[in-house]
Amino acid sequence: MNSTYLGVDLGGTNLRCAVVDEENQVLSRVESPTHAHEGPEAVIDRLVAGMIKAASTAGLDLGEIRAAGIGYPGPLNQVTGTVYSAPNMPGWKNVPLADTIATKTGVTTFIENDANCAGWGEFVAGAGVGSGHMMMVTLGTGVGGAIIVDGKLHVGRDGSAGELGHVCIIDGGRQCGCGARGCVEAYASATAVVKRFTEYLDRGWVSQLAQRRETLTCQAIFEAALTGDAVAMKIVQETGHYLGIMASAVAELLNPEICVIAGGMMQAGDMLLESIRTTCLDRNDHPGRTMRIVPAKLGGNAGLIGAASHAKHSASPAHHGIRTVCGI
Amino acid sequence: MNSTYLGVDLGGTNLRCAVVDEENQVLSRVESPTHAHEGPEAVIDRLVAGMIKAASTAGLDLGEIRAAGIGYPGPLNQVTGTVYSAPNMPGWKNVPLADTIATKTGVTTFIENDANCAGWGEFVAGAGVGSGHMMMVTLGTGVGGAIIVDGKLHVGRDGSAGELGHVCIIDGGRQCGCGARGCVEAYASATAVVKRFTEYLDRGWVSQLAQRRETLTCQAIFEAALTGDAVAMKIVQETGHYLGIMASAVAELLNPEICVIAGGMMQAGDMLLESIRTTCLDRNDHPGRTMRIVPAKLGGNAGLIGAASHAKHSASPAHHGIRTVCGI
Repeated sequence: MNSTYLGVDLGGTNLRCAVVDEENQVLSRVESPTHAHEGPEAVIDRLVAGMIKAASTAGLDLGEIRAAGIGYPGPLNQVTGTVYSAPNMPGWKNVPLADTIATKTGVTTFIENDANCAGWGEFVAGAGVGSGHMMMVTLGTGVGGAIIVDGKLHVGRDGSAGELGHVCIIDGGRQCGCGARGCVEAYASATAVVKRFTEYLDRGWVSQLAQRRETLTCQAIFEAALTGDAVAMKIVQETGHYLGIMASAVAELLNPEICVIAGGMMQAGDMLLESIRTTCLDRNDHPGRTMRIVPAKLGGNAGLIGAASHAKHSASPAHHGIRTVCGI
Repeated sequence: MNSTYLGVDLGGTNLRCAVVDEENQVLSRVESPTHAHEGPEAVIDRLVAGMIKAASTAGLDLGEIRAAGIGYPGPLNQVTGTVYSAPNMPGWKNVPLADTIATKTGVTTFIENDANCAGWGEFVAGAGVGSGHMMMVTLGTGVGGAIIVDGKLHVGRDGSAGELGHVCIIDGGRQCGCGARGCVEAYASATAVVKRFTEYLDRGWVSQLAQRRETLTCQAIFEAALTGDAVAMKIVQETGHYLGIMASAVAELLNPEICVIAGGMMQAGDMLLESIRTTCLDRNDHPGRTMRIVPAKLGGNAGLIGAASHAKHSASPAHHGIRTVCGI
């Protein structure tokens, strides 16, 4: 029988666990609320319960799982297996997550940033299959991403590479939540999209969403764009432009074959992608002009498959897939 | 006896050849004008003559040289050994440079972008020694650079990675020579520095250089900054700021240990470096805050040592130093 791995996507809202086989096929998948406000101990207990349930759903005991990978939504040290504080995880501060989970489950456990897990998932089993150099952009509450260089997840000197959202696209521009100005996240995150939309309304632009401005969501704006709302279409186009400026910077630096775009905003699909592509072409930038810009393929499974694959590669140093071997 | 290699730095103005040993020591070095206007055939003959002279100066025949590396100032294909057109090399179009030199000299020859050679030189023998991930910024007529990832020169999908000068720092900003707007090169190249300086004069700022505005050079501005000229100091500080915005983007994406700054502008040394550092710190950017920003160490030898080392690694696949093996 093939080896099986557990992939965990630990989010501020939901906690998901999946059993994944050697060929990156998801054998089982369970989901529960994270209840992050209850703090690390309660969340870790829930995480262990999720791992057990995912295994049993796949007809396995935890003892039959070769290794587990956990995608964590914040900074961490892959080598020591410790996670630092994260904005959506109150009470987490220097938690030895890999060790704790390994002790409670008996499963060798590795940790990686959640955006890196999702990027790695798309690389090994999704839109990036067959490429050697890839960038992934994840659009959500923030703008995240991952960098694959020469078939390896690039984590950098201290594990914090791939922060695409904090690439500055306009020196002195909009204030970003990180404290700096002009980050692409300050233009293209879900929050920023809503803010930019309401600014158009303030300037007198007419939109079908004008009556809902107090409860406006990024999703509603992107849906309105698909029905032809002019302001919403303008916002989608501009969001694509800002992302295109960032993507072309990555292309100049790294010359990847493919740029994979993931996240809820991709419901606007071609409208957003075309705008990103147009900006890359307009920049007269050779690497950007020839980089393929495509939607992600795995949806919510990317992080689970990526975390499991990360565990597989980390547990088997003979594999060359992922660089940082870490954990217990 | 140790193996020896030839490193060639083929510039639009000067052509330099050096014999370099296994330990990256320069054993001989010769220089001549390129006379680029005479076209590729004449330049190639001069290049071959330089290689012979560098070898004989080191007491060697070309037959004793293990391999040659040529740094070329424009786009090229490392795998086929062909160079494409370059702005400073009139008449060069799809020239099979590696093959041609190998045929004329009998020496196995590899080619690489000149900025990549300089970056690789600093990595193996200069300011980057001991690091794993490095970025190099070369300040001159343009803004160039190189990216080292996990001990390897990163050239990307088609060999054009490392174009730091065309990272956009201000969407819609100054026009760059590449056709796009807002590239850091449009702010921090030697030409851009002079342009920005004269704009201050136009606005009535007072400088000791005001009488020389028709013949103003970047070098004169940087020298004036060191003598306390307020406008020149402001220009140096702003140039560092723009470079810091770009460097922090690279830090977010790649989380390198070290950022090496090379080129003529480094005569302003600490004044420029401090400004780059301040911007990286101000951006509240973890990877940028901890990245060491240091001057290059090898000066004009970086490209020669890097080209020779490139040849060494390319000729010996057992070495893991450089990724792209190419040439004849």
